[in-house]
Parts: sequence; C-alpha cells; structure tokens
Amino acid sequence: MRTHYCGELNSQHIGQIVTLCGWAHRRRDHGGVIFIDLRDRTGMSQIVIDPDTPEAFALAETVRNEFVLKITCKVRPRPEGTVNPNIPTGEVEMLASEIEILNPSLTPPFMLDDDNLSETVRLEHRYLDLRRPAMQKNMMLRYRVAKTLRDYLDTAGFIEVETPMLTRSTPEGARDYLVPSRVHHGMFFALPQSPQLFKQLLMVAGFDKYFQITKCFRDEDLRADRQPEFTQVDIETSFLNENQIMDIVEEMIRRMFKQVQDIDLPNPFPRMPFSEAMNRYGSDKPDMRVTLEITELTDVMKDVDFKVFSGAANMAGGRVAGLRIPGGSALTRGEIDAYTEFVKIYGAKGLAYVKINDITKLNEEGLQSPIVKNIHVNALQAVIKRTGAQNGDLVFFGADKAKVVNEALGALRAKVGHEKGHVDGRTWAPLWVVDFPMFEHDEEADRWVALHHPFTSPKDGHEDLLTTNPGAALSKAYDMVLNGWEVGGGSVRIHRQEVQSKVFDALKISAEEAQEKFGFLLDALQYGAPPHGGLAFGLDRLVTLMAGAESIRDVIAFPKTQRAQCLMTKAPNEVDEKQLRELHIRVRQQNVAG
Amino acid sequence: MRTHYCGELNSQHIGQIVTLCGWAHRRRDHGGVIFIDLRDRTGMSQIVIDPDTPEAFALAETVRNEFVLKITCKVRPRPEGTVNPNIPTGEVEMLASEIEILNPSLTPPFMLDDDNLSETVRLEHRYLDLRRPAMQKNMMLRYRVAKTLRDYLDTAGFIEVETPMLTRSTPEGARDYLVPSRVHHGMFFALPQSPQLFKQLLMVAGFDKYFQITKCFRDEDLRADRQPEFTQVDIETSFLNENQIMDIVEEMIRRMFKQVQDIDLPNPFPRMPFSEAMNRYGSDKPDMRVTLEITELTDVMKDVDFKVFSGAANMAGGRVAGLRIPGGSALTRGEIDAYTEFVKIYGAKGLAYVKINDITKLNEEGLQSPIVKNIHVNALQAVIKRTGAQNGDLVFFGADKAKVVNEALGALRAKVGHEKGHVDGRTWAPLWVVDFPMFEHDEEADRWVALHHPFTSPKDGHEDLLTTNPGAALSKAYDMVLNGWEVGGGSVRIHRQEVQSKVFDALKISAEEAQEKFGFLLDALQYGAPPHGGLAFGLDRLVTLMAGAESIRDVIAFPKTQRAQCLMTKAPNEVDEKQLRELHIRVRQQNVAG
Repeated sequence: MRTHYCGELNSQHIGQIVTLCGWAHRRRDHGGVIFIDLRDRTGMSQIVIDPDTPEAFALAETVRNEFVLKITCKVRPRPEGTVNPNIPTGEVEMLASEIEILNPSLTPPFMLDDDNLSETVRLEHRYLDLRRPAMQKNMMLRYRVAKTLRDYLDTAGFIEVETPMLTRSTPEGARDYLVPSRVHHGMFFALPQSPQLFKQLLMVAGFDKYFQITKCFRDEDLRADRQPEFTQVDIETSFLNENQIMDIVEEMIRRMFKQVQDIDLPNPFPRMPFSEAMNRYGSDKPDMRVTLEITELTDVMKDVDFKVFSGAANMAGGRVAGLRIPGGSALTRGEIDAYTEFVKIYGAKGLAYVKINDITKLNEEGLQSPIVKNIHVNALQAVIKRTGAQNGDLVFFGADKAKVVNEALGALRAKVGHEKGHVDGRTWAPLWVVDFPMFEHDEEADRWVALHHPFTSPKDGHEDLLTTNPGAALSKAYDMVLNGWEVGGGSVRIHRQEVQSKVFDALKISAEEAQEKFGFLLDALQYGAPPHGGLAFGLDRLVTLMAGAESIRDVIAFPKTQRAQCLMTKAPNEVDEKQLRELHIRVRQQNVAG
Repeated sequence: MRTHYCGELNSQHIGQIVTLCGWAHRRRDHGGVIFIDLRDRTGMSQIVIDPDTPEAFALAETVRNEFVLKITCKVRPRPEGTVNPNIPTGEVEMLASEIEILNPSLTPPFMLDDDNLSETVRLEHRYLDLRRPAMQKNMMLRYRVAKTLRDYLDTAGFIEVETPMLTRSTPEGARDYLVPSRVHHGMFFALPQSPQLFKQLLMVAGFDKYFQITKCFRDEDLRADRQPEFTQVDIETSFLNENQIMDIVEEMIRRMFKQVQDIDLPNPFPRMPFSEAMNRYGSDKPDMRVTLEITELTDVMKDVDFKVFSGAANMAGGRVAGLRIPGGSALTRGEIDAYTEFVKIYGAKGLAYVKINDITKLNEEGLQSPIVKNIHVNALQAVIKRTGAQNGDLVFFGADKAKVVNEALGALRAKVGHEKGHVDGRTWAPLWVVDFPMFEHDEEADRWVALHHPFTSPKDGHEDLLTTNPGAALSKAYDMVLNGWEVGGGSVRIHRQEVQSKVFDALKISAEEAQEKFGFLLDALQYGAPPHGGLAFGLDRLVTLMAGAESIRDVIAFPKTQRAQCLMTKAPNEVDEKQLRELHIRVRQQNVAG
C-alpha cells in the first residue's frame, strides 16, 4: 500500500509523490491548515493538509490520535524557520493529495508521549505501550542483538539445535513449572529451567559446537529483574578448554556491541579469580567502574578491645574489612544512617565508620569515631596504611561472617561509588570472574552444595581435593560480568564418570539418587563423552543493560508482573472442569485459615 | 585441541602434521597395521597406526568403537588401489604419531551403521542415535533451513519478537497444555497453540513486519507426523494484501531451497482456488506431481438405476465422481480389493469401477463392471468423454457426500498415482491453494465453524454473504502445499470491529463469549489496528520433506513418541507431593473401571 516508510523521507525526496501508511501521532490545526504527524516503525513524517484539497481536508478534520491512515502526498521542503533538525525527516513536509482512513481508533487510555505512565496501565494495554518509540527501539535492539549473536555463532561453526520444552522434572535447583500429562495419568512434564542436560547430551552426540536462543522457566518468587520465563543464549562446545571458550564468547560479545551500538569493549576482557573479586570488591560480580575497594583487616583486628571486630576476626569464617571513601568525611549523619539501613538488607548488624581528620594523630582527635578508643594503635595504623586513607576520607567497616561482610560492603561499595561519583568514567566495564570454588557449605544442612552445578569440572589437579578438602577445590567455572551484572556464566563440564562420582560423593548424592535424577546423562557419559563446556547468557538482562532500561520488562514484548501475571490477557486464569478432568487433576480446596 | 576437522582433509594437506579429535567409528587390524576411522561432525578420516610408533600402537590396540580420541598425525596419500572416491577424505590417510584416549566408551547398545534399528532403541539412546551421519545431516539441514529463513526475513525488513510461552487458555481449537500457577490458587497458564493473537497484537502495536521461529503446543492424539511440541515459522505483516504476502513468503521458500539444497522451485508457484482443488484433486493439498484427476459426474448420474450413484447424485451435498487410471485394466483383483479397503479409511462404503475394454461398445462387453447394466448409455458416454478414458484404462467411482468422495478419491489418486507411476517426474511441486470458504458446516452441531480461524478476513465484496449466505462467503486465506503436504497457511485478518462482529454472529459466538475469550484482541482492534495478515510454516514438516525423512521425529533432536513420551529422559514422570501441594493441585484417583 505504501511507497515509503514515514521515517525515511528527507530532502532527497523533494518533489516526489509518495504514499505513506501509519498512525496519526498528533493532529494540529494551524493557520487554516491541518498538520498530522504520521508515525510508523521507522519514525514520523509531518503531513500538511491544505483546504485546496477539500476532500482530503474534510477527512483530515475527522482524524483523531491513533487513527490508521494511508496518505498520498508530495514531498516538499519545510518553510524557512520550521525545519526541525532533531528528527531525520525534519527538513521536509508532505503535502497531502489523498487521505484514506484505514481504521479509526477509540481515544487511547493514555497519551503515547506521556513518560510518567504507571506500569499497570502500560501492561494492560501493552499493544499501545509498544507503539511508543522508546519501546519500539527496545524491541528492535533486542532483535538486533539476537540476530548479531546468531550470525557470529554461525560464522564460528556453531549450529542451533532445539531442545524440548516438555521435559522431565528434576527436584534440584529452582522450582519447576509443571505440565500435567493427559496420556499418562498422574505424570507431569516440567518446563526446562535451562537446556543444561540436553546441551551436554548434544556434545556426547558429537555436535561439537551448539547454541540455542531459547526460553527457560523458573517458578521463583519474582524480584525486580526476574521473569517466570526468560530467554537464554545457550552455548556448548567440545574439545575446548575454559580459556578457549571464554575467548570465543568474549569475541562474540565484543563484536555484537560494536555492530549493534558501535561500542568498543576492551580486548581482552580482564579476568579475575573469584577470591580476589570477593576480597577486593565483596562480590563475584563487581562493578569495575566503581573505583572504591575493600581492604582486608581481619588479621589486625584479632586482639582489639572492640568486641564486634575481634569477635568477627576470631570467628571461623569471619571477616573484618574496611571500605575507604575518599572525601567521605563530608557525608552527613543522615547519609550515614541511610547507608547503615542499606547494609542491613544484606544481614549486617551495623555499619561502623571512622572519619579521617588527621592521619598523623591516631586517636579520637585525628580519627573521629566512637570505636577508635577501643582499637589499638597498631590496628589503626594498619587501617590508614592499607586503605591508603587521607585526611578528609571516611572508612566504613564490616565485621561478621565473611559472607555478610562481603555482601554488605560489596553492595555499599557500588551504592556509594555511584552516588558519590567514585567511578572511572567508563560506560562499559566487562570482566571475567574465574576460579570459582567447586562447593559452598550449606550451614543449615551441614553439607557441601555445588556452587555452579554438579556437572562442573574441577580445575586440573584439584580432583583429589574433592575428597580430601572439598572447600578448597576450585572449578573450571567462569562468569561474565558487565557493570556489576552477571550477564553470562558457565563451565567446563565433567566428561569422565569417575570424576563425576567423586563430585556426587562430596555432595552426598548417592549413586541411586544420582541415577534417579540424572541417569540418562550419567549413562551418556559412559559412551564416549568428549571434553566439553559452555555457558549461557541472559538475553533479557544483556539487552536491558544495552538499552539503559530500568527493568527487564521494558525489553520484553509481553512480560509478566512481579506477581507472575499478564495484565493484558489476564493469564493465568481459571479453566474448565472438563480440562482438569482430562488431565487427571483437581484443584485443592483453598486453605481458609492461611 | 584439534588443528583440523576429520572431514576436511584432502590431498592439499599432504605432508602436514595435523591433530584431530573425534570418535573411533571403526577399528580394523590389517597386515600388522591398525586402521581407525575417526569421525566428527564433518566426516571421517582414516588413521593408520604403524608398529613403528610402539606407544601409539599399544594404545590403538585398546581402542574400541566410540572411544574419544585425540590423534596427531601426518597426512599422506593413500597407497594406490586404496583410494576411496566416495568420501571427501578418500584420497588421503593420516599416519598417527601420537594418540590420546580422551574418554573410553562402553560397547554401544547398537551399531551406528545399522540401518534397521528399532525406533525405540534409537530414542532411548538418542545421544548415540544422533551420532549417526544421517541424523547429523538432518539436524544440520534443519539448522541451515532456519538460519536461511531468518536471514531472508531480516533482509526483507522483518523483526523477530518473542511472544510468551506461559499464556492464557482459550477453549477453542485443539486441547491446551496447562501449567498450574503457584502464586494464583486454582489458576492455570496454557502453553501457546500458536502465537496467533500475540502476532496480531504486534501488528496493532505497529511492528509492521514480524516473524518468530518458535515452539507451539497441542495436546492432541498423536498421528504419525505430529508432536506435542512443534516448531512454527510464524510471520505477520501490516499494510499488505494477500497476494503481496504470498509473494514475499513464496520468494523466501524459493530462495531457501536454492541456498540450502540448490533446488530451483518454479517462479511463481501456481495458485489454485480451493473449489478447483477439491473438484479436480479431491483435496485442499493436492500432490501436483500426480497426473491423475477426478472427473465430475454428479449431474449425469441423477437418473441412473444404480441407486448408489443416483442416491448420492440427488442427495443435498452429495457427489458422484470418477478417477481415470490410464492402463488401469491391468490392475489385479487383489489390487482393486486393496484399494477398496484403503478408501474405507476415508469413510467410503465401497469402490465401484469400470474397466474399459472397448470404448466403442457402451455395454457390458466394452465396459467390464457389474454396475454397467444399471447405468444408462448417456451416463456411460459422459464417463468416457469427460474422463478421456481409452481402451485399457480403468475408472474408479466415488458416490457419497462430497466430503467423503473427495477424501476417498483424493487419497486414492495420490496412492495409485505414486504406486503406478502416474507422476510427472518433478521432484518438487509447490502450489498455493487460495479462496477458501470462510466457514464449513458442522453437521452434528448444525452450525457454521471457521475453516481457518475466526479472525480470517472475508474476500472483498463477501462481507454481506457473512449474514446472507455464510456457506458462499470466501476468505482471504491461503495454504502453501508442497508435494501433497500443507507446509504453511495463513490469511489476511479482520482489522475492523464491525466485520469481526459479523463473523462472530455467523459462528453464533455471542458478544459476551467473544469478550471472555478474545477480549484483549477485540479491544486492541478498536485502537487503530492496521490492515494485517500473515501465515505460519511448520518447520518440522518442511525439513522432513527436504530431508526425505520418513518421520518428523527424524528431524527433531529429542522427539516424543506417539504416546507423548521421551524415552531417553522418561518424561513425563511422577513428581513429589510437595510440588503438587505448592501448585494447589492433586492427582485424581485412577478410575479402575475405565
């Protein structure tokens, strides 16, 4: 129907007769002439309807916002003084000769230009919300990212293989979404939390380099940046070691940023051991744009009078650490109180601090803080020396189990860093975190659990530690971190049965239990599994970062709310009794008491 | 680890030292030397291990089928007389200097070379089945098809948008797979039967050209070529009419065949009205390679004595038709009996026929058949004239409701055509079937039902027929047929509310019911929906055809059986009571009686 898109007309088209199709973004009547901004996927064109074309003029008078129009018009330069240099079509306007109303529109429930819409209203009328240029841009960006990744992976010899959506429930990891079987009474499929097992089986099957951009499902309580269904860029390779795998996907991400947004990411990405990330940044996904660092103080606090510090320093698995804030003496009481509240989210009981007035005076005069009198000079000296504190700085302290200290100071580091401008000016700071421990200790259950997943390979030479000292065993796992977000993660997998058995032993998973849960993978490993490994990227999160969006919901066409509902279709909904009967299930009575 | 793939070595590499990784496809000991065919995704290399390298030789002696090996070797020409011109690497062999067993293998449950494996065994050990070169080729083909389609659609200005997997159940069409909600007691998501409603909403949202390669789900009783989850190439466009849409996707399919398999499909594809397809071929997806045609005889059989014919000819909606088989007099009694049994599958009560001995004698001498004596000469003359029958031919007859006649003779046409060689020699015969009726009459419920779906637009000028004569209203629907398979289908949709209401009226869907089922779409249509339409291709079926595979299961990595089970993972399975409790459902007691 159209000859051109609205957004592509410019001074080169002057004099041409064109036909455009799109939506009336805005109608203005000015000086006896009607102006319609006609909008399509590509942008806007300013249409002028003159009383000299009475038929078109009469129709144009009936046009309201969001009417669908087909307009034939002549491209001409805008009169002097009305050129709009901010839009690509700003040099021209189109004089309409013919207008057809392809479809009228009710008055939309909100103005598309309104930037302060409630998300509820937007999600209820998502088909209108998605018309907004910002959302169109986000969806285009998402598509371009996926296409560029696919093209790179194709060139690099990967093939996309689809794995099943209706698969087997394994009561490990997050909660499964279940799908009752009609054919098999009392049996259920599960929607995949990831294609992990299938991609490993594809390596056993010899596909060598696999990828898939696919939906995964986790029935978790939803945080701000989670969705019940999310999209994963899933990758697996054979006969490559962890560095080769990281090299390939790092190059993929670098090229994608360059092609899609003309951004140059560093080459190579820095790689940092997990232990260093935790010690220096209190996080396994540090935002490297933030220049603040955490300082180890455990050793010097063991014998101070301040019990909070010496208690933590002497506790098994305890840690005392400092966070120097340059110029932090200027923080107000109110700011410090707010930060104290903030760290409590992470389990910290308080937030000790010292304001540095004069580093030459290691007493309550030079160091302003109620705790100084209970900390001996050696320790204070170490604080000054190790943090590199200068007059006018402030040092926050964390003292607790290492996990709490790291999470609290790690989060505080990022928060203070961004709020107070302790950032290095980079827009993008990617990082590989490597050398993760194989296991972390579950205090409650008093057992080791897999930090990554139970198929992750130990580092070469760490196989014996699986038995002798599981906590010291490191793995061939790696995470890609971007601006403090984990955007991807993976590992080299175990391909030999005897190593897999040792890991199950360390995890106290019996042979029977392992067989019951992952039998088909364990079987497969015995029939010539190649060395293999891979990783997965969270597409939603990656695109959210690139779009500078506030929520992953802004880069998903039809997202769910945090209550796991679709406000537009009203899903989930009640279904017919007949459907439940066919599936051999019934709904339980609602527990009135709770 | 490797320097080359196994399948890429040829005489150009002679003299090079290469490292290969792969699977021992076969080991032979011959003349004091060991030969290993090393296999990877790309093909095979013949490795020679000589007793001169004692370490490698000793290891090679322990190698069994499917061991994973890393071999360093020197490429050399094969000795004269041992060149194998049938494989790309057949001119060279690799003299091993070093062998590493990366992983041993148990003896596989079947030989990969065995072409007569039971599908059950193959599916139980799918990771081994997928190692077979034929399956590797199928999966590669599938990937190449999808990638090529994506590239074409990208160039044509389409963008891929992901639509939800957890969506709303609409008790229309096939049976839904349901997913119980944990957060919302007694409520369920449904897995999408297609993204139909969402893609229409994306057009309302102004995306202009959408596509998605995505999983769809139907909980139907499975026929040979159906799967509970299947993959659809889903397409929707705005501001294009049906011919423009067909042109775009026809070009997509043509280019894809050319790029992937170097096949030239006709340009353009022929387009045939539904009524002609039914009349001439008894099918809305005729295999155009078959040269047989059905002949209309209803009008001439109204007053014959043979009650089966005259009864059908005078019945409302009845049809009498013939199918001429050139040279068919040679059919044996047994063959004719078998064809008679075959048409009973389609509801035919029998299969009358006439063998043409002498067309100049319109009696029981010239026309050999028990029915001839009860058919008057005028009718016999019409049979001969209209079918174009010659001496030595046979004419089959169908007489019943038109639906039964068409299905029976349509299927018989394809069967006899292929079995008896009445085909035109083409490998690929694509066809568009167009001008479908809007509705078909459901005899049982005595009401009209949508032939395509209730959002399909009537043809221009047929809007009034929706009310006055629904059975005569034609739609803007179209199916792409390839070699007798429907590979794709779609339509221009209704974009105006008043037309949609007329269709719901014809379908006897009340405003309340429509609002309950499709409210969000009907709402969306009122806010400036553009004219739009699209279609969907069944990727599994398309690839099955291109692969020449026997079943769509052969082009799906991890398919379900006809009983909707995954034999490898044993899904579906029983789940923990705790999981069911969290989802607020319980399993019904098994009904012992039935």
